[in-house]
Amino acid sequence: MESDVSFMQEALSLARKGLGRTAPNPPVGAVVVKDSRIVGRGFHPRAGMPHAEVYALGAAYDEAKGGTLYVTLEPCNHHGRTPPCTQAIIEAGISRVVVGTIDPNPKVAGRGIERLRASGIVVDVGVCEDACKDLIAWYATWLEKGRPYVILKAAMTLDGRIATAGGDSRWISSDESRALVHEVRNHVDAVIVGIGTMIKDDPLLTCRIEAGRDPLKVILDADFQVSPQAKCLGPGTVLFTAKPSDSRPEIVEQGVQVVRLQPDASGRLPWEQVLSHLGGMGLHAAMVEGGSGVYSSLLASRCLDSLMVFIAPKILGGGIPMVDMGSPESIAQSVRLVITGVRRTGTDVLVTAVLEE
Amino acid sequence: MESDVSFMQEALSLARKGLGRTAPNPPVGAVVVKDSRIVGRGFHPRAGMPHAEVYALGAAYDEAKGGTLYVTLEPCNHHGRTPPCTQAIIEAGISRVVVGTIDPNPKVAGRGIERLRASGIVVDVGVCEDACKDLIAWYATWLEKGRPYVILKAAMTLDGRIATAGGDSRWISSDESRALVHEVRNHVDAVIVGIGTMIKDDPLLTCRIEAGRDPLKVILDADFQVSPQAKCLGPGTVLFTAKPSDSRPEIVEQGVQVVRLQPDASGRLPWEQVLSHLGGMGLHAAMVEGGSGVYSSLLASRCLDSLMVFIAPKILGGGIPMVDMGSPESIAQSVRLVITGVRRTGTDVLVTAVLEE
Repeated sequence: MESDVSFMQEALSLARKGLGRTAPNPPVGAVVVKDSRIVGRGFHPRAGMPHAEVYALGAAYDEAKGGTLYVTLEPCNHHGRTPPCTQAIIEAGISRVVVGTIDPNPKVAGRGIERLRASGIVVDVGVCEDACKDLIAWYATWLEKGRPYVILKAAMTLDGRIATAGGDSRWISSDESRALVHEVRNHVDAVIVGIGTMIKDDPLLTCRIEAGRDPLKVILDADFQVSPQAKCLGPGTVLFTAKPSDSRPEIVEQGVQVVRLQPDASGRLPWEQVLSHLGGMGLHAAMVEGGSGVYSSLLASRCLDSLMVFIAPKILGGGIPMVDMGSPESIAQSVRLVITGVRRTGTDVLVTAVLEE
Repeated sequence: MESDVSFMQEALSLARKGLGRTAPNPPVGAVVVKDSRIVGRGFHPRAGMPHAEVYALGAAYDEAKGGTLYVTLEPCNHHGRTPPCTQAIIEAGISRVVVGTIDPNPKVAGRGIERLRASGIVVDVGVCEDACKDLIAWYATWLEKGRPYVILKAAMTLDGRIATAGGDSRWISSDESRALVHEVRNHVDAVIVGIGTMIKDDPLLTCRIEAGRDPLKVILDADFQVSPQAKCLGPGTVLFTAKPSDSRPEIVEQGVQVVRLQPDASGRLPWEQVLSHLGGMGLHAAMVEGGSGVYSSLLASRCLDSLMVFIAPKILGGGIPMVDMGSPESIAQSVRLVITGVRRTGTDVLVTAVLEE
């Protein structure tokens, strides 16, 4: 029904308010409709807080009885930090539930819908399903792979350089491109940079937009060389290193979580372990912000899902290439991508792509 | 008037049939209108053939009397290979002439319009002016700079590589991108490649589309190393070298025009002289197709007008960068561009840009 679509779109736009705040839960939105009128709205604001359905049912109060609940994701049927939503829906007297998509979490995976149907509620599944699946794509990757959805973000000149040989990279990209990066930081759970970028740029790695929240800051620093004065150190920072954490008390004392990993044969921190650790922390999405060495090892590991490449209207003609993975023998050895979008951001072009399956 | 615009659009679409065939003349289209009906159409098919106005007036025959002539470019008032068009217009009894844009050629530059007005004809200038100027942009550059309009065309991976270190570049770009290159070859007067590309790829440099025509093939070969078996050698080829032409009779005998130039201090053929020679041959537009050394010296010389960069959905991670101009010290030393368009071509992205003024 056309009205089903428009009510689900309202639930979707509510859900998006929670994007980047709900991990390890997915973002979810819900509306309660009675006599073709929305009588309650809700979204899951963050882990530990009530689910979207509970907010929407609470707002609808006694109008929920005999009403329809639209929810972007299948309601849960298990006790987590909060009681199961199916129970709240049944108790509120809802007569029909419209579900955007089934929860890929094996703890739910259809059981929420079964429970509702068993209690006599009509359940329709798949309204705005693509949009509802997109909304939880990061969560689905995390469930499936045990690691966050990984986005490689780079800003380069039209000839593929991210900095001069001396490290100058300010500013390759436009104000609009950098503003967009802050929007992404507001939604991903973590940003990841290498020690080279830390030393050259001393970045804040914060989300500098209104009502934004900072992602977890992740530093890859096999030799534990980070400066104790680095601006982004603090309780919101995780540092991966191959050295013992007690070798640098001045870093640990700033609240930085230091995680020791066994390096690979070439002395690098293995991406599989870095990302599996972040997945274990319940993080659904991470953006890798550089530099060239980090991009190269990430692409070589294939532990990534998508790329955002900002291309600036400049030809540098030398300096540091975006990627350096040695000397491939043929074009056929390339990492193959599928371009998913192209747009202008200020004076730049943004190309988005995913890895070819 | 709205009808002026639609008649001029018809003249523009006629003019485009001559694109790439008229040098050293510009492409021009014309229609004769009588009682709101088109009674004659014409375009300039190639140098030495009659001008657009003559075809349109001839087709209109005695209906031209009292009619309106729409012409994309100011009619000429001088004797060239053909008599002046102003005379033909006056003799045909045309009562109004609508001109798209003034001819930037100093031999014309308003004098055609003056002559028409002096004979009592109403002349309106500037209908569809931007499109009429675009149509003759290559001609205007040639008039202004004495060299062809130069387009740098490259196909690279998303990380800015045009080939492996061993020279493999087949195929970086998609079928659709390569088809578009053939469309451009059909319109530019020349394509230019370096000897490195000749040796590695032995290209045909032909225009492989239906009803297409081959551009002049230009080879930059300072040391005169080209193989006598190279596929693109023949009467339609010009080879620039620093060596005497009589040193390789087996090349000259194939009909190749060999032009000797004084190399610069680094042994390279100076772009200014190459392009000035091609300008002297009456060529309005040239597409530079590679390789990296040719792109780099061209960008360093700044003797170019625009770029077409096809970006393939691949990360090669090594190999030959699109441009290698040494080691710039800061981003501010970049060649600055303005991006004029972004589109998908098959699985690739095509970025078009011009040099910042």
